Amino acid sequence: MTRFFSFGRKPVGQAPGTIEFRGRKMQEHVRISVVDYTEDRCDERTVADVAECLNYRDTPSITWINVDGLHDTDILSTLSQHYGLHPLVQEDIVNTQQRPKVEDFGDYLYIVCRMLRHESGKSQVESEQVSLVLGPNFILSFQEMEGDVFEPVRARLRAGKGRIRKWGADYLAYTLLDAVVDNYFHVLENFSEEIEILEEMLLDDPAPGQLSTIHAMKREMVLLRRAVSPLRELVGRLERGESSLIDERTRPFLRDVYDHVIQVSDGIDSFRDLLSGLQDLYLSSVSNKMNEVMKVLTIIGTIFIPLTFVAGIYGMNFEHMPELGWKWSYAIFWGVILGLGGLMFSFFRRRRWL
Amino acid sequence: MTRFFSFGRKPVGQAPGTIEFRGRKMQEHVRISVVDYTEDRCDERTVADVAECLNYRDTPSITWINVDGLHDTDILSTLSQHYGLHPLVQEDIVNTQQRPKVEDFGDYLYIVCRMLRHESGKSQVESEQVSLVLGPNFILSFQEMEGDVFEPVRARLRAGKGRIRKWGADYLAYTLLDAVVDNYFHVLENFSEEIEILEEMLLDDPAPGQLSTIHAMKREMVLLRRAVSPLRELVGRLERGESSLIDERTRPFLRDVYDHVIQVSDGIDSFRDLLSGLQDLYLSSVSNKMNEVMKVLTIIGTIFIPLTFVAGIYGMNFEHMPELGWKWSYAIFWGVILGLGGLMFSFFRRRRWL
Amino acid sequence: MTRFFSFGRKPVGQAPGTIEFRGRKMQEHVRISVVDYTEDRCDERTVADVAECLNYRDTPSITWINVDGLHDTDILSTLSQHYGLHPLVQEDIVNTQQRPKVEDFGDYLYIVCRMLRHESGKSQVESEQVSLVLGPNFILSFQEMEGDVFEPVRARLRAGKGRIRKWGADYLAYTLLDAVVDNYFHVLENFSEEIEILEEMLLDDPAPGQLSTIHAMKREMVLLRRAVSPLRELVGRLERGESSLIDERTRPFLRDVYDHVIQVSDGIDSFRDLLSGLQDLYLSSVSNKMNEVMKVLTIIGTIFIPLTFVAGIYGMNFEHMPELGWKWSYAIFWGVILGLGGLMFSFFRRRRWL
Amino acid sequence: MTRFFSFGRKPVGQAPGTIEFRGRKMQEHVRISVVDYTEDRCDERTVADVAECLNYRDTPSITWINVDGLHDTDILSTLSQHYGLHPLVQEDIVNTQQRPKVEDFGDYLYIVCRMLRHESGKSQVESEQVSLVLGPNFILSFQEMEGDVFEPVRARLRAGKGRIRKWGADYLAYTLLDAVVDNYFHVLENFSEEIEILEEMLLDDPAPGQLSTIHAMKREMVLLRRAVSPLRELVGRLERGESSLIDERTRPFLRDVYDHVIQVSDGIDSFRDLLSGLQDLYLSSVSNKMNEVMKVLTIIGTIFIPLTFVAGIYGMNFEHMPELGWKWSYAIFWGVILGLGGLMFSFFRRRRWL
Amino acid sequence: MTRFFSFGRKPVGQAPGTIEFRGRKMQEHVRISVVDYTEDRCDERTVADVAECLNYRDTPSITWINVDGLHDTDILSTLSQHYGLHPLVQEDIVNTQQRPKVEDFGDYLYIVCRMLRHESGKSQVESEQVSLVLGPNFILSFQEMEGDVFEPVRARLRAGKGRIRKWGADYLAYTLLDAVVDNYFHVLENFSEEIEILEEMLLDDPAPGQLSTIHAMKREMVLLRRAVSPLRELVGRLERGESSLIDERTRPFLRDVYDHVIQVSDGIDSFRDLLSGLQDLYLSSVSNKMNEVMKVLTIIGTIFIPLTFVAGIYGMNFEHMPELGWKWSYAIFWGVILGLGGLMFSFFRRRRWL
Repeated sequence: MTRFFSFGRKPVGQAPGTIEFRGRKMQEHVRISVVDYTEDRCDERTVADVAECLNYRDTPSITWINVDGLHDTDILSTLSQHYGLHPLVQEDIVNTQQRPKVEDFGDYLYIVCRMLRHESGKSQVESEQVSLVLGPNFILSFQEMEGDVFEPVRARLRAGKGRIRKWGADYLAYTLLDAVVDNYFHVLENFSEEIEILEEMLLDDPAPGQLSTIHAMKREMVLLRRAVSPLRELVGRLERGESSLIDERTRPFLRDVYDHVIQVSDGIDSFRDLLSGLQDLYLSSVSNKMNEVMKVLTIIGTIFIPLTFVAGIYGMNFEHMPELGWKWSYAIFWGVILGLGGLMFSFFRRRRWL
Repeated sequence: MTRFFSFGRKPVGQAPGTIEFRGRKMQEHVRISVVDYTEDRCDERTVADVAECLNYRDTPSITWINVDGLHDTDILSTLSQHYGLHPLVQEDIVNTQQRPKVEDFGDYLYIVCRMLRHESGKSQVESEQVSLVLGPNFILSFQEMEGDVFEPVRARLRAGKGRIRKWGADYLAYTLLDAVVDNYFHVLENFSEEIEILEEMLLDDPAPGQLSTIHAMKREMVLLRRAVSPLRELVGRLERGESSLIDERTRPFLRDVYDHVIQVSDGIDSFRDLLSGLQDLYLSSVSNKMNEVMKVLTIIGTIFIPLTFVAGIYGMNFEHMPELGWKWSYAIFWGVILGLGGLMFSFFRRRRWL
Repeated sequence: MTRFFSFGRKPVGQAPGTIEFRGRKMQEHVRISVVDYTEDRCDERTVADVAECLNYRDTPSITWINVDGLHDTDILSTLSQHYGLHPLVQEDIVNTQQRPKVEDFGDYLYIVCRMLRHESGKSQVESEQVSLVLGPNFILSFQEMEGDVFEPVRARLRAGKGRIRKWGADYLAYTLLDAVVDNYFHVLENFSEEIEILEEMLLDDPAPGQLSTIHAMKREMVLLRRAVSPLRELVGRLERGESSLIDERTRPFLRDVYDHVIQVSDGIDSFRDLLSGLQDLYLSSVSNKMNEVMKVLTIIGTIFIPLTFVAGIYGMNFEHMPELGWKWSYAIFWGVILGLGGLMFSFFRRRRWL
Repeated sequence: MTRFFSFGRKPVGQAPGTIEFRGRKMQEHVRISVVDYTEDRCDERTVADVAECLNYRDTPSITWINVDGLHDTDILSTLSQHYGLHPLVQEDIVNTQQRPKVEDFGDYLYIVCRMLRHESGKSQVESEQVSLVLGPNFILSFQEMEGDVFEPVRARLRAGKGRIRKWGADYLAYTLLDAVVDNYFHVLENFSEEIEILEEMLLDDPAPGQLSTIHAMKREMVLLRRAVSPLRELVGRLERGESSLIDERTRPFLRDVYDHVIQVSDGIDSFRDLLSGLQDLYLSSVSNKMNEVMKVLTIIGTIFIPLTFVAGIYGMNFEHMPELGWKWSYAIFWGVILGLGGLMFSFFRRRRWL
Repeated sequence: MTRFFSFGRKPVGQAPGTIEFRGRKMQEHVRISVVDYTEDRCDERTVADVAECLNYRDTPSITWINVDGLHDTDILSTLSQHYGLHPLVQEDIVNTQQRPKVEDFGDYLYIVCRMLRHESGKSQVESEQVSLVLGPNFILSFQEMEGDVFEPVRARLRAGKGRIRKWGADYLAYTLLDAVVDNYFHVLENFSEEIEILEEMLLDDPAPGQLSTIHAMKREMVLLRRAVSPLRELVGRLERGESSLIDERTRPFLRDVYDHVIQVSDGIDSFRDLLSGLQDLYLSSVSNKMNEVMKVLTIIGTIFIPLTFVAGIYGMNFEHMPELGWKWSYAIFWGVILGLGGLMFSFFRRRRWL
């Protein structure tokens, strides 16, 4: 759980804008990749030194600098100084437990969102912070771990079909956001399948392990909601076009992302409801089954206890027990026993206890 | 459940506006029907090729083109190009898991809603996406499966009574929405009847199967709400007349639909409450009945256990047990047994345990 | 329940404004009563034919036409045509499952609310639709069953004291709404008494029947809320004076009704909370009592089981059991039995299990 | 409960503004006290006849007329006529079950709030309606029972320190509201102490009575919330200075009252949460304890039942039972018995059932 | 709990602005420390007499006067008079149970927030009121106990790096608020760790003590929310720059604090959900374990009861029991016993009761 709750906060009272990486270091080397494109061409390369990508700033082409690995804060400092990022932005980039948000600094927009990673079969969802800085003709993206959701975007840039190389940096930002949100659907579909399987198993044969599975899934839903629900406002603000960095023509696309975020959010809510329903169902079917067991067992016991008493009576050693000497006593005894047992059995039957 | 949660999303990072059908193919052949009408006439026909219905666009008459079957995306492309639909609209039409919404593209309105199909006796509600494109003098409607809720509308067009042929395309759009919402009432009435029957059965004789029925109905309510609640905003926006495509005189009718959507929405909420109430009632009547059983059984057992002990005592083989030789021992034994049993019985009675 | 959930909807796709009664026919004959009054006089009569009340429209006096019985739609048609009612209004009048609402048609206001009928002792509340049409100098009121809540209003009109005959039709509309809402208080007071009685009974001696009473009352609360909560907005809109048909001087009175509606609404919410509390209390006192029973019974059983075992030992027929021949064996046996029993008893006592 | 739910409503359809006392008559005599003050002097007296206090109206001094006892409606009528109160205000004053509200009649403000009375140790909170009428230079206050929360205000008027005699009637109104709200804190503190004591008792030794105490407290919270939550809006409206009767300089003081109302409201919500938590805790500790009992008892029984069976075998009277004649049978029997018992005991131990 | 619910209110009806300390006196001596700084210098000293710090007011330098210990109200009075604080502000400073809020008095802002203190391992969170008065060039801060969250701020003032000595008093106020909120993260992280540990323990081996731990943590969450949730509005109002005392350039920093407050608030909500989940999990795993125990025990008992009955039969002393004399009776008896036992065992197995 600490993966979600270690807020990675600076020590109390430290100056704001202190740039110190406080997430988990996930990979050894920092990888900086640059994609520089115009409608006609698309140069893509991985640079060893951050200095190599600084001269792109003043060209008219659109530049996307992606940094995988945040623990080397020098790289961030150099980039920030070059692109004039506010100290608080730098601090937020390396404190990888931010709530998704968008901040307008006039010259550029700072967008934080979370990328989810969920392997089906595992209950835990890994979440990673993705920071985007959108300027007039550049996008900087930061994350600790190399993610694969941006790979298809690179492929589309290479291919150069459609609007992606014709329109501006804002459209690229939309494309990246869209990739992040599309990925949520895949995570939700994994959960959807697991919930469906769980429901079938549960109706079939409730087992103790299912309860902790339900519990784990509900916990993930609590955490997922925290990652997703602020996105609604984020994308909503982008779509309302409050910033001049977002072109008018990009807005229908952002509205589309907005619809998807709401769909994801609704999906999470439905899953919570469904999981609560499953938990209720589990608990009551377990207790039903238990009751069934106890009832049958108690009935068996109860039929034999009075019979044992009768047998006990004729095991007594009183000298004067006339029945003991009678010839048909034993036969009558069996008659009484079978009669009593039958009576009780039919009584239980009639009252539908069996 | 996958019927509801397979969001049918495009692969992560794919370009927006990619038109690829990702729903379940429900029927072999695509069926295109055209209704072209003015106040005086109403031509209705099924066309084999989409090209046949293109020349209606530039006539002053009102044209309703209905496409049943979305898997042949060529048809959609042709129509879209002809009527100038935005690529995102095309994408939404074929991704049949959209949230109900209305989008204003100036020249036309794009409306998504969901049609429900519920056979009474079956717990699952099937939901299907209906896309409407409302232009100045045309309506395009898309759905994967041929639905029968629009049939009465066609009948009214044929008959030509009332306003339907006199007023514009917006009134036809209202009529189609109204048919969709009216159908919700029928689905809800089915549920209402089933809940009523369930309540009676449950008060009469609670049985394990009822719990999973309640669970299934609650699940459907979660899913129904997802289909219905966005409609509220949708119809509200249409009714406020934000688009010039909606005539002033059509607005009272949309307000009527709006009232119906709220009624449906309230109904779903009430059903959820009622079902929760039934679940509580079921659980406590089962546990009541169980307690009843256990109590009576335990009492029977408990009366006989001390008696068996007494019998056990006189079954002992000690040589020196004076009672064994007494003449009235056996009679006294019976007296004690019956007395003890009676005492315990009356004790349980008095404390109202029996 | 169908009494609440049969929405009485028109068949899917039927033209709006189709006037067809779909409620339950409650009485044989339609009764039309007319009250026509000015400050000086008040004529009250029951007419056999609807035509008799048409000439009141163009007089300056204020006319209240009340129709009890909706199944004869001809009467409604005649009145509607004469007073120029919108087809949707006519449809809503006869579909007696509308949600309370107010609609402003410029010339007249159409108000739908629900009248409640609850006989104390019965758990079900009957609800009936009352439609009011408020014009400049007339009020039309429609309902299927002759209700008695309007009788005192008629009496006040006859008496002619206070404002009722001096002020306009809007004040009469207020008076009718006020009578409907006042009646809610009486229904709530019935429930309040029943809840109080139930709470006392429940603390005294919980019995299975109480649970289904609580369930029934909770269900009624769900349904009552559906009838009452839309009234809030309805009266609020009237009070804000959006329509010119409502005189400025009538508004303080409508504000008064508004306060009452909120009070009723709060009351229903409190009742729901109280009933949930009672249900919790019932369930836990039943389970407490049950536990008490089981505990005492189990203890009795448990004390005797080991004792029976001891008795069983000395009922064995081994040839070499030295204790059997000892002289004080039997006495010692009794000593051990009583000692063991006493020990267990005091052990249970000390651990407060008894 | 009727103390809270007897809405004391007028009969259905009665004319509004009918002045008829419908609360519980709490004291025999009506007590009218008048405080008339300027910055320099403060005359305080109890008048026998309402006529004596009428001539204060037209003096420039500030007059506070307090009426304890509402059943004599003549007094109210005289005052109302003299001060020009709206008939609905008069009706609300005597119907002592109003929801807290403020109404602006231009010349005067009508304020209804509820005074609470709670003796610690008793679970029920008594609530009484206090009506305030604030005019330019007078305040009328009405309540059925003589309350003591206003006594300190009188004392401060007498002492004449601070602003109370220098500022206007609005400041006096604030002072009275403040006294009412301050009193809420005392009621809440009583509850706070009781909840704390209850929690300790409950962790120490859960007993059945605690559940009904929790239930009673939760019920009071439901009712308290009804008295307090409307105050939020009431004081908020006063503070926003919508009425010219409230001086600008009094507003910070009303904001202070507003803060207190929110604090009280938050406190009630927290108490509800805490009480729900306590109920959960109670139920699970009772069931824990019960389970403990049942488990130990069942184990004792279960160990002896197989042993009794073994003893039963050697009590059989078959002629050919070789073990019966063996010399060491009895010793072996004891060995088997003790061995079996020990095995079961250690088995239960190992699985941590004991 | 009284630590949270003793509202420390003045007696009912007492004049507002009465300055009387009603919290718990936490330390003997009042400690007044003054930090006076400009961009170039930073004088820091502890004064014995409040008079020593009065002459700072009229210097252009920025002065931060911090008072630890509120029970000596003279100090507060002197400071208040000197800096012109409203009587209600003084009252709020010493009544240390205020709800967090900000009040704009034109010349200065009065800010109340709560500092949390939580030692890991202890369940209770201590909360202390911190009052800040922000003027054009001064900050007064008041608290009863010397807190250590402000120490790092003093260290940064001494060091004089960054903006802290260059910007105005509003930036210092931000720094103090930021320190308070940063501290919340540390408290939440403590809880996060404890919840994680608890979850592991609970899945491993549920024990009764865990329930009261969960209960205690949920209670703390109720109380934490009360301290934190009003901060949202507080910081929001500061950030919207409603007061001229807050410089434009400080607003991005306040927005940063605002984000953190929302993160904390979200965290508390998540914790509540997680704790509820844990409670459900605990209850059902306890009941699962209990059911397991009861089932196995009942089965053992149930298998032996019929067997004991059979043994009882052949312990009877009837003279005419032919089986007793048969040669193979005893062997057959064992056969029957083992057969019956085996049958029941396999029956239980097959129905998965074992």
